[in-house]
Amino acid sequence: MIPIPKGFAFGAVCAGFKNSQKLDLGAVVCEKDASAAGVFTKNAFPAAPVLVAQEALEKSGTARAVCINSGQANAATGERGMVDCKLSMEMMGGALGVSEESILPCSTGVIGVPMDMGKWRDAAPKLAESVGSCSAMDFTRAIMTTDAFPKLAWARVTGLPGNGDGGPVHVLGIAKGAGMICPNMATMLSVVMTDAEVEPELLREILKESVDISFNRIVVDGDTSTNDTVFLLASGAAGARVERENKAVLAEAVAEVCQALAYMIAEDGEGATKVIRISVTGAKDTDDAEKVARTIAKSPLVKTAVYGKDPNWGRILCAVGYSGATFNPDHVSITMGNIPLFRNGQPVEGQAKLLLAPHMRRQDVEIGVDLGAGNGVYEVLASDLGHEYIRINAEYTS
Amino acid sequence: MIPIPKGFAFGAVCAGFKNSQKLDLGAVVCEKDASAAGVFTKNAFPAAPVLVAQEALEKSGTARAVCINSGQANAATGERGMVDCKLSMEMMGGALGVSEESILPCSTGVIGVPMDMGKWRDAAPKLAESVGSCSAMDFTRAIMTTDAFPKLAWARVTGLPGNGDGGPVHVLGIAKGAGMICPNMATMLSVVMTDAEVEPELLREILKESVDISFNRIVVDGDTSTNDTVFLLASGAAGARVERENKAVLAEAVAEVCQALAYMIAEDGEGATKVIRISVTGAKDTDDAEKVARTIAKSPLVKTAVYGKDPNWGRILCAVGYSGATFNPDHVSITMGNIPLFRNGQPVEGQAKLLLAPHMRRQDVEIGVDLGAGNGVYEVLASDLGHEYIRINAEYTS
Repeated sequence: MIPIPKGFAFGAVCAGFKNSQKLDLGAVVCEKDASAAGVFTKNAFPAAPVLVAQEALEKSGTARAVCINSGQANAATGERGMVDCKLSMEMMGGALGVSEESILPCSTGVIGVPMDMGKWRDAAPKLAESVGSCSAMDFTRAIMTTDAFPKLAWARVTGLPGNGDGGPVHVLGIAKGAGMICPNMATMLSVVMTDAEVEPELLREILKESVDISFNRIVVDGDTSTNDTVFLLASGAAGARVERENKAVLAEAVAEVCQALAYMIAEDGEGATKVIRISVTGAKDTDDAEKVARTIAKSPLVKTAVYGKDPNWGRILCAVGYSGATFNPDHVSITMGNIPLFRNGQPVEGQAKLLLAPHMRRQDVEIGVDLGAGNGVYEVLASDLGHEYIRINAEYTS
Repeated sequence: MIPIPKGFAFGAVCAGFKNSQKLDLGAVVCEKDASAAGVFTKNAFPAAPVLVAQEALEKSGTARAVCINSGQANAATGERGMVDCKLSMEMMGGALGVSEESILPCSTGVIGVPMDMGKWRDAAPKLAESVGSCSAMDFTRAIMTTDAFPKLAWARVTGLPGNGDGGPVHVLGIAKGAGMICPNMATMLSVVMTDAEVEPELLREILKESVDISFNRIVVDGDTSTNDTVFLLASGAAGARVERENKAVLAEAVAEVCQALAYMIAEDGEGATKVIRISVTGAKDTDDAEKVARTIAKSPLVKTAVYGKDPNWGRILCAVGYSGATFNPDHVSITMGNIPLFRNGQPVEGQAKLLLAPHMRRQDVEIGVDLGAGNGVYEVLASDLGHEYIRINAEYTS
């Protein structure tokens, strides 16, 4: 059974935002104000809830609850979207008996359409009532949209100095997302909870570092949602305190949880059948390594080749060639599944493609590129590109 | 019937590079050395024929012939590829009775596989023999790969100062390509011919300017081939001379021909059903306008929405939001088919989507974005993204 960090409770109801009988409104509530940190989309058109949550966190660095609705994104809704978002949090604050500013909102769903405030008004008290009687899985289902499966991951931390009952510390992460896809209903949202005691500033560092090596390292279609949000909440209920000196112990657990969730999102990329692990080494610097890794990860030709189980290293070479990174073509090498295909600017003779056949049938396909230009390294996870992606995104009607 | 610029003759044969009975080797031959200019791929891994042609043009600025094979790209073939390319031109030079350095080579086809020199040896004399007895259409077919239709365009120029029989000047362009797709067999190649008399330096200017507003303005999947090449040859046989003063007259005709060919390539984009015309205005500068236009043109979400006939302006807004251009979100406006959907940061109320239904059924779909940040403008043509693209590129085996 899923270990729940102390101090947190879940609620979930069907508010009707999805026009179905499915759960589409969920809340994580903390018994007292939790330290809270957030990382948000860099899209120039952030959705209303993103702006509201950012403002709330800047003010206090703490939160009592996270409230997420699926079905309506409240993005590109102009001034009205801001008013609606604040009103919905006012309703939730009243129902939960907490200040509206202590609730962090997220929305995911159809863009450019105002939220149905009548449904909010009806659902708010029901959601408050459900808190405590729902499981983490109920909450996870309430925030799912095009997700094919619920995404949860957890870790356990021991050896932190206890200042209370000194029990073990838990980290639980819940995410939804099937691609950095907007405004289709596949925004990436995640709430990570821990019962360790952590100061907001330290919590922000831990979250930022974890997101940089997890959620920021996956590429489904390269589109960046207007609603992407990741929260980290620390209740302190485990009676174990994290200071700068022992930060690493918790940071590792949070990063591990975020990486597990990020892998699940790539795995669940719309229409994806495989996860492509792209490792670039020997770049001039990290920026160049990232450039090459992301160019390969976004190349429709590489993604369709992997979908077709074809070890088409020529397409990888080509993407490296237009990535804009600095290197000497004669020093570039490419491997798939660690089998050399192109070495120092020359194709490798032999039966590499036959050897690769079994690797190409796996769910995880590995691409390695060495630029022979320095010590820069970078790794990303990418989804392949198949018929299902087209079906989902061409047939989806806004 | 297609007007052929004076001084040019065509040849085409089946050499067997395509492993079929189809034409796969063609030549354009000029009665004497023609002024010649070329524009080549910026990919860091240019194919052997690209390097050989660049070298030849730098030396002389003239050419007697262009020789193109389809079926084998001679790309990513290392040193051996250079040797093979020069050897094949030696064979052609011998067969045509011209110096090998006066022939400009192009190859398109499978990457990473050495060319079959035996087939070259057999085909060279047959190709030379066919010159004069073949039509421009035969040559066009010989360089086609995944193209769904042959691509030719022409223009007529009058009013140039004659220094001979003073007849009208002709411009004929031939292209192949179904996407900036590599290493699949869809490299973009084009040969543009004119019978005007033009100095090489002036010819280079005219070609560069024309390519910048035509072939460089189309986006199918954003991948850039290792073999992309455009040549412009001027025979001077019409007896009309182009000087810097009257350069514009010919430049307009060449640009017109290149734009017509570029449209056909976008129209024929692998699996494409529509051509998306993306116009960005009001950008801080041209670079920003280009950034936004290309981000929209490459967005799989925008491309699949257009394929699905869905006027999903939210996906356009989202792409603008992560394009990296500088603007104030409250000043951004979006139109489709000139119908306002989003104005000054606010969605436009009303029945825009109903009004747009007929527009979305057209072959040409128009997207307009105004950033309200300056005078920068840019326009690109893009293909939509459909099931056929996945089929072609997933089922193609290297």
